[in-house]
Amino acid sequence: MLIVMQPNVSEENIKKVIDYIKQRGFDAHISKGEDHTVIGAVGRKVIDKRDIELLDGVKEVIRISSPYKLVSRVFQKEDTVIDVKGVKFGGGHIGMIAGPCTVETYDQMDATAAKLSKYGVKMLRGGAFKPRTSPYAFQGLGEEGLKILKEVADKYNMAVTSEVMEVSQIPMFLKYVDILQVGARNMQNFNLLKSLGEIRKPVLLKRGLSATIEEWLMSAEYIMAGGNRQVILCERGIRTFEHITRNTLDISAIPVVQKISHLPIIVDPSHATGLRDKIAPMSKAAVAAGADGLIIEVHNSPDTAVCDGAQSLYPEQFGELYEELKALASVIKKSF
Amino acid sequence: MLIVMQPNVSEENIKKVIDYIKQRGFDAHISKGEDHTVIGAVGRKVIDKRDIELLDGVKEVIRISSPYKLVSRVFQKEDTVIDVKGVKFGGGHIGMIAGPCTVETYDQMDATAAKLSKYGVKMLRGGAFKPRTSPYAFQGLGEEGLKILKEVADKYNMAVTSEVMEVSQIPMFLKYVDILQVGARNMQNFNLLKSLGEIRKPVLLKRGLSATIEEWLMSAEYIMAGGNRQVILCERGIRTFEHITRNTLDISAIPVVQKISHLPIIVDPSHATGLRDKIAPMSKAAVAAGADGLIIEVHNSPDTAVCDGAQSLYPEQFGELYEELKALASVIKKSF
Amino acid sequence: MLIVMQPNVSEENIKKVIDYIKQRGFDAHISKGEDHTVIGAVGRKVIDKRDIELLDGVKEVIRISSPYKLVSRVFQKEDTVIDVKGVKFGGGHIGMIAGPCTVETYDQMDATAAKLSKYGVKMLRGGAFKPRTSPYAFQGLGEEGLKILKEVADKYNMAVTSEVMEVSQIPMFLKYVDILQVGARNMQNFNLLKSLGEIRKPVLLKRGLSATIEEWLMSAEYIMAGGNRQVILCERGIRTFEHITRNTLDISAIPVVQKISHLPIIVDPSHATGLRDKIAPMSKAAVAAGADGLIIEVHNSPDTAVCDGAQSLYPEQFGELYEELKALASVIKKSF
Amino acid sequence: MLIVMQPNVSEENIKKVIDYIKQRGFDAHISKGEDHTVIGAVGRKVIDKRDIELLDGVKEVIRISSPYKLVSRVFQKEDTVIDVKGVKFGGGHIGMIAGPCTVETYDQMDATAAKLSKYGVKMLRGGAFKPRTSPYAFQGLGEEGLKILKEVADKYNMAVTSEVMEVSQIPMFLKYVDILQVGARNMQNFNLLKSLGEIRKPVLLKRGLSATIEEWLMSAEYIMAGGNRQVILCERGIRTFEHITRNTLDISAIPVVQKISHLPIIVDPSHATGLRDKIAPMSKAAVAAGADGLIIEVHNSPDTAVCDGAQSLYPEQFGELYEELKALASVIKKSF
Repeated sequence: MLIVMQPNVSEENIKKVIDYIKQRGFDAHISKGEDHTVIGAVGRKVIDKRDIELLDGVKEVIRISSPYKLVSRVFQKEDTVIDVKGVKFGGGHIGMIAGPCTVETYDQMDATAAKLSKYGVKMLRGGAFKPRTSPYAFQGLGEEGLKILKEVADKYNMAVTSEVMEVSQIPMFLKYVDILQVGARNMQNFNLLKSLGEIRKPVLLKRGLSATIEEWLMSAEYIMAGGNRQVILCERGIRTFEHITRNTLDISAIPVVQKISHLPIIVDPSHATGLRDKIAPMSKAAVAAGADGLIIEVHNSPDTAVCDGAQSLYPEQFGELYEELKALASVIKKSF
Repeated sequence: MLIVMQPNVSEENIKKVIDYIKQRGFDAHISKGEDHTVIGAVGRKVIDKRDIELLDGVKEVIRISSPYKLVSRVFQKEDTVIDVKGVKFGGGHIGMIAGPCTVETYDQMDATAAKLSKYGVKMLRGGAFKPRTSPYAFQGLGEEGLKILKEVADKYNMAVTSEVMEVSQIPMFLKYVDILQVGARNMQNFNLLKSLGEIRKPVLLKRGLSATIEEWLMSAEYIMAGGNRQVILCERGIRTFEHITRNTLDISAIPVVQKISHLPIIVDPSHATGLRDKIAPMSKAAVAAGADGLIIEVHNSPDTAVCDGAQSLYPEQFGELYEELKALASVIKKSF
Repeated sequence: MLIVMQPNVSEENIKKVIDYIKQRGFDAHISKGEDHTVIGAVGRKVIDKRDIELLDGVKEVIRISSPYKLVSRVFQKEDTVIDVKGVKFGGGHIGMIAGPCTVETYDQMDATAAKLSKYGVKMLRGGAFKPRTSPYAFQGLGEEGLKILKEVADKYNMAVTSEVMEVSQIPMFLKYVDILQVGARNMQNFNLLKSLGEIRKPVLLKRGLSATIEEWLMSAEYIMAGGNRQVILCERGIRTFEHITRNTLDISAIPVVQKISHLPIIVDPSHATGLRDKIAPMSKAAVAAGADGLIIEVHNSPDTAVCDGAQSLYPEQFGELYEELKALASVIKKSF
Repeated sequence: MLIVMQPNVSEENIKKVIDYIKQRGFDAHISKGEDHTVIGAVGRKVIDKRDIELLDGVKEVIRISSPYKLVSRVFQKEDTVIDVKGVKFGGGHIGMIAGPCTVETYDQMDATAAKLSKYGVKMLRGGAFKPRTSPYAFQGLGEEGLKILKEVADKYNMAVTSEVMEVSQIPMFLKYVDILQVGARNMQNFNLLKSLGEIRKPVLLKRGLSATIEEWLMSAEYIMAGGNRQVILCERGIRTFEHITRNTLDISAIPVVQKISHLPIIVDPSHATGLRDKIAPMSKAAVAAGADGLIIEVHNSPDTAVCDGAQSLYPEQFGELYEELKALASVIKKSF
């Protein structure tokens, strides 16, 4: 921690700051510049930097240790590669996940999975518990939805992911799914994160609508701190002043995260933009920028979908897009 | 719902839209303007407006029904007044809640409550379960903290509020607290909201960091839809590009919410700004703008506080501020 | 400037950084902590910190000198008080400016000024050159508008402010107005700022829609660097994700700016909220938070106003509000 | 314009609204739904929708005409293709512009242009007048810079673009440059836009830091309304709460703009991210998403650059990137 003193600060104030941090178990290193005296506080204790900023003569306190450890490239240099039944995320591998917003019926899932499987998709998505902003909206089929999801996936030899909303649902999810999703609105549901740290299945952690990249990585740290090393990060758009698109997909988060962390980062273009005709360009952008995977909404019949039909691709659209994405990936020396 | 067609749209496309909405149980009213044909879809069914926006010739679809019902002034004209052991929020009454960020020890709480009580405060706050962005930070005393909180409050004849983080904690909270707080990061933890709808104690619902006012009211709607009519809204700052203050306190949310909803809205200046010297001006601003209450962090010894000491007032500072706030309130014909 | 090195950085990389900054005229002070070595770069040269961040082994570079000088409280401790024909801004004085969005006709201005004058207002506002987002919207009366503004103001012994949009308009403005306004969209029109630095009349500098407080102060620094010391800052709302109000009025900017700078800061509640019924609560909030002035849109007949009628107060509404504001000001020991 | 009335509105209030709009030259079409009566106001007059929102019984007023005309695909279906000395933007052509932040010396420009020319670049960028946030920073070489830029470009048979900051500079720019740039901070400098509408050379219009896509298109409309049909839009990052990158590059603006408007849209990855190692991934993302061009900062010696060296590519990096971009473009059936 670095404590920058005001210009022309008195020796007395400097001494008081030094006494303050020494009492709290830090060593002090002093360095005088032309305008500013800087005090380095050296130690491993935890202290709220604002407490020091309130002392007389202090201009600014700067934290220099990164708050995250296990998620950092300093902790692990090589990419974490997460392999779920042969679908790989990270280390040059791009994982593809596709499926409808919501599990509606066995037939709907079967029809969708049949087509996706034909196009080479090996991981199926589908919501059973839905976080809806209105209490009056359809809230999902619940466990019945998870059962259908798994049954259909087994038929086509696919893996499965679905969103878990509550600590008490985790044991149920472990029976049916291969990857547990945490939705954007639960990114800082710390009780849920802690419980997910105790399981040994991969967790797909979506970025909160207004979460900084640092906060997002700290939420991954919560899971890893519990002993679960299999975290996939998922960028799905942040909230900005622009309202033509539902959210602003932060494509630059891909290279930023990949530099700081060893965890794979994938992109959800469907929820970010909210409109079908923007999914293809944003999927291509994500792959070109180096994403480690994509999660795309596809429905066998978007026009009759119970929810999010407007942002779901028709299976044929998806098939064409997937071919283009493979061609783009090969240009940047990656592969699905 | 209003469907605005593109200029120069064909009759065939208009017909297709009308057929589409009729199949889904709506009546259609057509109105032709100089540039645009507008189709009014009349009915009570739920439909995703984006599905219609994807039809040929459609320019824009506009929802005109408000998504909230129970929270709205259309549903209830008069202010909801929430009265907790004599502390009132709403209807011209400004409720004051004060206390430390976290319950640390019995002595800390006792010392703080003794002073607050002397200044006339009748509701105590204090965290027992803390939502911390880092898994390595102090997470609160848990149930022990709630016990201390209640014991001290009883001694000074005060009411009590504390933050609940998880569905499974609700029965425990009901034993100790008078108002259950929902933190900003849990504003869209819908399982928690639903469970809080089933209790019959007041809920203090903080606005999420990037929640629109509409989303915030929808979260209140979740609680009310379950039958719990006692919801207090709490503005605590939104996330913007400005980083000198921790968040940007949206004071204009006060008159905006008061026009749309009958629920009381209070302000938390401590978390919004994150610095002690900004709390007094922002508290005054909130009262002058018509807030129905304040929740302020006060600690008997901020310099040694376990957390958030930097944004906690000294008891004496609080005492002076409270006097000023009472004087401001009387100017606008309200009272604490 | 402080250069924080990565943990476990090599001695060679440390040496390279030191060589790099020495070549550019800085002294280096080294300080080793438990995790991080920190190099203090001492000197007065200008260097882009990102250049150093790109060197091997560097974690982060932190600028510790403030970029502003003349606007800072370090440069001048006492409040700058700007006195325009007896209307004072700063140092405990709250200045009031009122008038219509746009100068429309002599009669409109005369009717409005007559009432404002009766209520004790001594400074009149009114746009003659209007920055409109659409090229097809009314662009203002131009010089004719300025003439009317001054003629009416002289009749009621009032001072005058109006918005200047272009360097070439400055000489014309100097003939008619007492304070030259710079609009939010021109806050970083640096050529305009430089030219306004050369005049010797007060400048009212609005904050840009997405300007940080630091950028805003730097724009004031441009004016002061040219020798014009009379700058009034005006907060008028920033752009956020919330769309119920046109912008989000950043009331906390008032105490933040007052701590950093000696310049007066006033508030424009009319443009921030965009709706008449939000102006009174936000004006009161601004005064309670310590604003040094207000600029409020008032029109003798808002229903027939050429522009912004919806955010203009009726004269009688203004009269009542002004009385309330005076009462609030006296509570916090300030006066209009 | 559609006027949505409150539920249970009185007939009298409906009548008042109808009278109000008729007096202002509109026809009224009434349509009654289950909850809401909607009044369509038909006509070509301009009216501030907030004036109507203030009438009794009005819930909301919705504008349905697009504010832009000439920039819209309704006005012109085919892509505008801008061809500057053989460099094409739009209609399947991706234009490449490269060069340093600032023109420093003849030798610097010559060395940079020599390399860029070798890699196949045909349009050179370089600032001569620099919009700097600090009055104390280097402000550019002025006209001397433009001369050098043109002299070097002529030597290598390249076209030239540079930023114009002020109306009075336009005649000078017309002598030296092929495309006049408008910087993000001047996107709503309406006097500048109007003057650029009167020339007959292409204008490259950057998006403002907090400009909505609609506002950006309205600024293009200003230029086109003056008769200049050659406008290139340039996305360069918007301001959000995320601070690891300087701005958040809004890649989704590419398909959004291309649907609404016929104008070409290019991307500036250098200013958006502010760091060299993020330029390659974001350039690839832009091309994959369908951008009509790129403007990239390249400097013959970034380590000694006067400004923005940290976000400038080394010529060799650029050369490699350009090859990759061409390969990506061919996948999506476009070409440089």
